[in-house]
Amino acid sequence: MSSGGARPKVVVCKDLGPAMPPLLERKDVDIVVWPEDRSCERAWLLENIKGAAGVLVLLPDKVNQELLDAAGTNLRVVSTVSVGYEHIDVPLIGAERHTSWLYADVLTEAVADITIMLALMAGRNDGVAYTLVKNGEWCKPNLGWSPFTFCGPQLSTSLSSPTRTVGFLGFGRIAQATLSRLIPFGITHCIYTGSPTSQPDIARDDALQAKYNLKGLNRVDIDRLARESDVLFLLTPGGKETYHLVDAAFLRKMKPMSVLVNTSRGSVVDSDALATALREKWIWGAGLDVVEGEPAITSNHPLVKEPRCVMVPHIGSATFQTRLDMATLAIDNLIGGVFGGEMPAELKRPA
Amino acid sequence: MSSGGARPKVVVCKDLGPAMPPLLERKDVDIVVWPEDRSCERAWLLENIKGAAGVLVLLPDKVNQELLDAAGTNLRVVSTVSVGYEHIDVPLIGAERHTSWLYADVLTEAVADITIMLALMAGRNDGVAYTLVKNGEWCKPNLGWSPFTFCGPQLSTSLSSPTRTVGFLGFGRIAQATLSRLIPFGITHCIYTGSPTSQPDIARDDALQAKYNLKGLNRVDIDRLARESDVLFLLTPGGKETYHLVDAAFLRKMKPMSVLVNTSRGSVVDSDALATALREKWIWGAGLDVVEGEPAITSNHPLVKEPRCVMVPHIGSATFQTRLDMATLAIDNLIGGVFGGEMPAELKRPA
Repeated sequence: MSSGGARPKVVVCKDLGPAMPPLLERKDVDIVVWPEDRSCERAWLLENIKGAAGVLVLLPDKVNQELLDAAGTNLRVVSTVSVGYEHIDVPLIGAERHTSWLYADVLTEAVADITIMLALMAGRNDGVAYTLVKNGEWCKPNLGWSPFTFCGPQLSTSLSSPTRTVGFLGFGRIAQATLSRLIPFGITHCIYTGSPTSQPDIARDDALQAKYNLKGLNRVDIDRLARESDVLFLLTPGGKETYHLVDAAFLRKMKPMSVLVNTSRGSVVDSDALATALREKWIWGAGLDVVEGEPAITSNHPLVKEPRCVMVPHIGSATFQTRLDMATLAIDNLIGGVFGGEMPAELKRPA
Repeated sequence: MSSGGARPKVVVCKDLGPAMPPLLERKDVDIVVWPEDRSCERAWLLENIKGAAGVLVLLPDKVNQELLDAAGTNLRVVSTVSVGYEHIDVPLIGAERHTSWLYADVLTEAVADITIMLALMAGRNDGVAYTLVKNGEWCKPNLGWSPFTFCGPQLSTSLSSPTRTVGFLGFGRIAQATLSRLIPFGITHCIYTGSPTSQPDIARDDALQAKYNLKGLNRVDIDRLARESDVLFLLTPGGKETYHLVDAAFLRKMKPMSVLVNTSRGSVVDSDALATALREKWIWGAGLDVVEGEPAITSNHPLVKEPRCVMVPHIGSATFQTRLDMATLAIDNLIGGVFGGEMPAELKRPA
């Protein structure tokens, strides 16, 4: 440390609950924690980061020139409690002065879990059914049992529908964890569209097809993905390359009984087009953990008003276990960066 | 037929939608269908069943002495579009005069699907999260990202929680179909409590444990089932033997972070005790497709008022595919019974 024998200062922009005690018990760092249960105030952060060797930030905390100038030359590490790093100006941090760590794998399982949940909820009319019970309407006499009341398309295969095709826009870790969970539902075919810049991996695909005893696992173009998927999962990065890939033209190609699930980034979907698709029954239903423009989603949002749209407020990784793992990993990254030790999840800077 | 050359009459108490055309096109039966989109009126049924050779009923249509007397001696088959047959006086139908068919296997997959959905929803605070978005509250400033907002226990295993135990009260077809779906979530242990009158099947259990690479699969007593399950699935028949097996004493033994899922019969659970358990945090959450006293469930029901209780209105088998399979099977049973042909799903009468 440039401050000689003094303990390095680390600034933590959020009390990370059960992940905090191991950090707070350390004698070798001077820890400053934003004390309130809301996002860290910018003025507080700019004041407290002066001379810090490390800072632990969250999505709302922008890491830009202003923050780096306030920190000064002691700063060695920026660690964020997130997979995304849109809030960090990575080139500015640079390779020499500062280093930044993130992580990703840690939330794969939690997001795959909620992806399955949303596929089931969107197919099974669950939003409507749940709301009806909560409103005390289960007792209404017009709800007598009828063979097709509340029916939706079945995720699993059945006597009369012995094949099911799942589609993935993006086929990374979370997509593959989702596919593994779908296998016991009797899924028979898997198709996916990968990034145009990525190479097909036929050996990997053949191995997955054999492992899961699928009738087919194929990389396809986006047109075929739209046309053939019974359930379509969006698990692709955000950004310009995927902006509104799911638009009106895409949705018009989908099957009328298909279900769309988005647990990646809201910007992949044109919300107005999806609302139209649901209203005009181009597709059966949608399950969304992310929506373009979130969290500024009011009751007037066209998707909030669609009964066949199940939306939850970006809680894909929101389990105690995963958030504890995320926080612990962020703290490990922070301490590793401050002392030049092991950094479990370092962000690879663009070349 | 006792009516000589005349076509046998069959009475259908509900228009079964897409399953009907193959029945209606038959030239060899005289078909009478209740014409309205609500439960069949008793007076209509008693009038129309006169002289019928077969009748297709639903849960609300009681098959008792009154109905059999109205039908007369021609009646050969009672076919119900349900797995349960509480509405049928089976001994009264008898082995000689009439025969009754039901079926069960056909809805296994649809119910296993919704069982997984409810386990995920109850764990992931989904009722609260879904309602918040539908109420337009996602945009509220106090919902800024915080590490543990909306968190619940994770169904799948994770870095910090590498073991998960699922429990089953009842371990029949639907329980085993549910277990198969849970395996890719990384479940490590399975325990179950079988009917006290059933014999342990150690060979079957060992085979399942090996097939799924579980660290344990064991039949246990109900006390251990309550104490060790992270997620507990109720998939047992209803009736006196299982009435309120899940009561206050049982719920007090459960883990504070555990989730209870009931997709079998409402009578297995003491609703007041469960509401207390949720309110006082003896357990984390509950997902229910069935509730004692349903469908007379108003907004004043103690479980409807619990935010950690996710309830849907007995829609376990409500998919187009399964309901079509159910209706088709019921019609096949009906026609088989009328003509003395194949009967795919005959009810085994008590000895």
